[in-house]
Amino acid sequence: MKIYVYGVYRDEVPYIKEWQDEHPEVTVETTTELLNEKSVQLAKGSDGVVVFQQKPYPDEALRQLALNGITKMSLRNVGVDNINHQLATELGFQITNVPVYSPAAIAEFSVTQALNLLRRTKEFYLKLAKGDYNWAPHIAKEMNKQVVGIVGTGNIGSTAAKIFAGFGAKVIAYSRHKNKELDGIVEYVSLEELYKRATIISLYLPHVPATDKMLNKETFSMMRDGVLLINTARGPLVDEEALIAALDSGKVGGAALDVMTGETKIFNQQIDEQSVDYNEFKNLVKRPNVLITPHIAFYTDQAIKNMVKMSLSANLDLITTGTSDKLVKF
Amino acid sequence: MKIYVYGVYRDEVPYIKEWQDEHPEVTVETTTELLNEKSVQLAKGSDGVVVFQQKPYPDEALRQLALNGITKMSLRNVGVDNINHQLATELGFQITNVPVYSPAAIAEFSVTQALNLLRRTKEFYLKLAKGDYNWAPHIAKEMNKQVVGIVGTGNIGSTAAKIFAGFGAKVIAYSRHKNKELDGIVEYVSLEELYKRATIISLYLPHVPATDKMLNKETFSMMRDGVLLINTARGPLVDEEALIAALDSGKVGGAALDVMTGETKIFNQQIDEQSVDYNEFKNLVKRPNVLITPHIAFYTDQAIKNMVKMSLSANLDLITTGTSDKLVKF
Repeated sequence: MKIYVYGVYRDEVPYIKEWQDEHPEVTVETTTELLNEKSVQLAKGSDGVVVFQQKPYPDEALRQLALNGITKMSLRNVGVDNINHQLATELGFQITNVPVYSPAAIAEFSVTQALNLLRRTKEFYLKLAKGDYNWAPHIAKEMNKQVVGIVGTGNIGSTAAKIFAGFGAKVIAYSRHKNKELDGIVEYVSLEELYKRATIISLYLPHVPATDKMLNKETFSMMRDGVLLINTARGPLVDEEALIAALDSGKVGGAALDVMTGETKIFNQQIDEQSVDYNEFKNLVKRPNVLITPHIAFYTDQAIKNMVKMSLSANLDLITTGTSDKLVKF
Repeated sequence: MKIYVYGVYRDEVPYIKEWQDEHPEVTVETTTELLNEKSVQLAKGSDGVVVFQQKPYPDEALRQLALNGITKMSLRNVGVDNINHQLATELGFQITNVPVYSPAAIAEFSVTQALNLLRRTKEFYLKLAKGDYNWAPHIAKEMNKQVVGIVGTGNIGSTAAKIFAGFGAKVIAYSRHKNKELDGIVEYVSLEELYKRATIISLYLPHVPATDKMLNKETFSMMRDGVLLINTARGPLVDEEALIAALDSGKVGGAALDVMTGETKIFNQQIDEQSVDYNEFKNLVKRPNVLITPHIAFYTDQAIKNMVKMSLSANLDLITTGTSDKLVKF
């Protein structure tokens, strides 16, 4: 039995070895290359593939995999929006993901960035770099005085809500499904009320048609002046042009973006910030009250361990039993 | 009745006005100057002075104040180590401080910096500034997997302990006086056990002879490899030469210093990092895993409000009643 693993990072290697040691009956082969029209041939002779990339999976790569008899594909991440679902179904693919690898990894990062906005950390980095070691005038705000609006109380949003509550912040939330674990911790409100009351708004929703550009000119206009935004979910939830206008007017007091609409143009690569073909990014990245990070919220040792080992086990399940509890239903 | 306020920052002005409006019987006059041999004459004719500075209060300024009949002095901060206690007593001074202005301000900042060390934020700032938008190899650790050692569980340490516990971290603590509020949240241990078990050590103690250089070559050697240190308390608690050696050897994996032994040479002023006469600072500030901030943990809107209004009220108490519940006993 052989599983071929694409796009392997250095941090993943020890956990692949750990899984291999626990499953001596399986041969695991790896490459640092992503799955594409060329690299697809490396997997020839394997029973399944394990993959992880933010770029689209090319149709031709899926076709070649199927031609080579490989239709068991396991993602090391959650999102399946970079796969041509219709084609994958036609070709008979079975695809698994890792729906929950570490809610805390992302939740904790969203809290970290909220604190960095309250504490004006980036402004301090910039002034200290110039030898300006004065405190004033960069006065901070305290988390325990904030009203935190959690949008989406799935695994990640719920974990974040509990952490924010641990600071003594007032936590309000909007979600289609109320999480009973949050009784006594969170006050559920309508989305409109959340926009009106929160001093910090943090997003924990998937990108689907209903959430596309949910933060836009109209919803920004409902918010409190100086509201802080945290997006560790998906870039397209925020209309970036509207965000720029809201930052210009002072409606939004600061934003931490770990995801961006056009992130595949900039993240996980070496770029030249000034010449990159992405005007909203170029505008936002220069602002002292905007923190841009390259989709790193998930990137913890615990999360990587779970992503690697859970995806390999799901792939093995597909191969040996024909199904998996992590099967994606398109 | 007149109170003269020294060293006023822009952020303090609205709260001075607020207090003035609440006390129309008092005349409040202010200056941005610190209390020294020259500026002391500005207070002539006042009944008391309200002060705030990190530099020593010059003996001559205290003498001139007393000569002008002013011996009611109220500090807007906690620390009284920059006052010549013996002289002040001889001159008949009554001095108040603000022992608790906002424990959350400092506690929250210590947590922020612990998160920034776990998330390797400074390393990301440095690499992003060069256009390197790759995640790898800067993998983060999660707070919920850490053992946090709280040294000192007074107001600030206790607040921090509760926040760390809200992340799901294991919180252990050492303190001479056990805080019953922390039952079920914190496991009290000996200082030696704390040094041996903690993956993050955060200090919340005053600087007294017994705590001078408590983190030194010997205590570092007891700690876990890669331990993270947070000091938002007082600089001299840490032997900075020993810290440098421990960072070099990898014993200490990162440090966040909001206070430093020689901080009056560098903080709250414009400096040239390379030419300043402070070798330990020059060594530490360059390191990507050391976060130096200029004594800003206290610096929040809530804290400033409390420092201003509580010190003015304490000074008024001294003037009108001859004592105050905030009287410092030397």
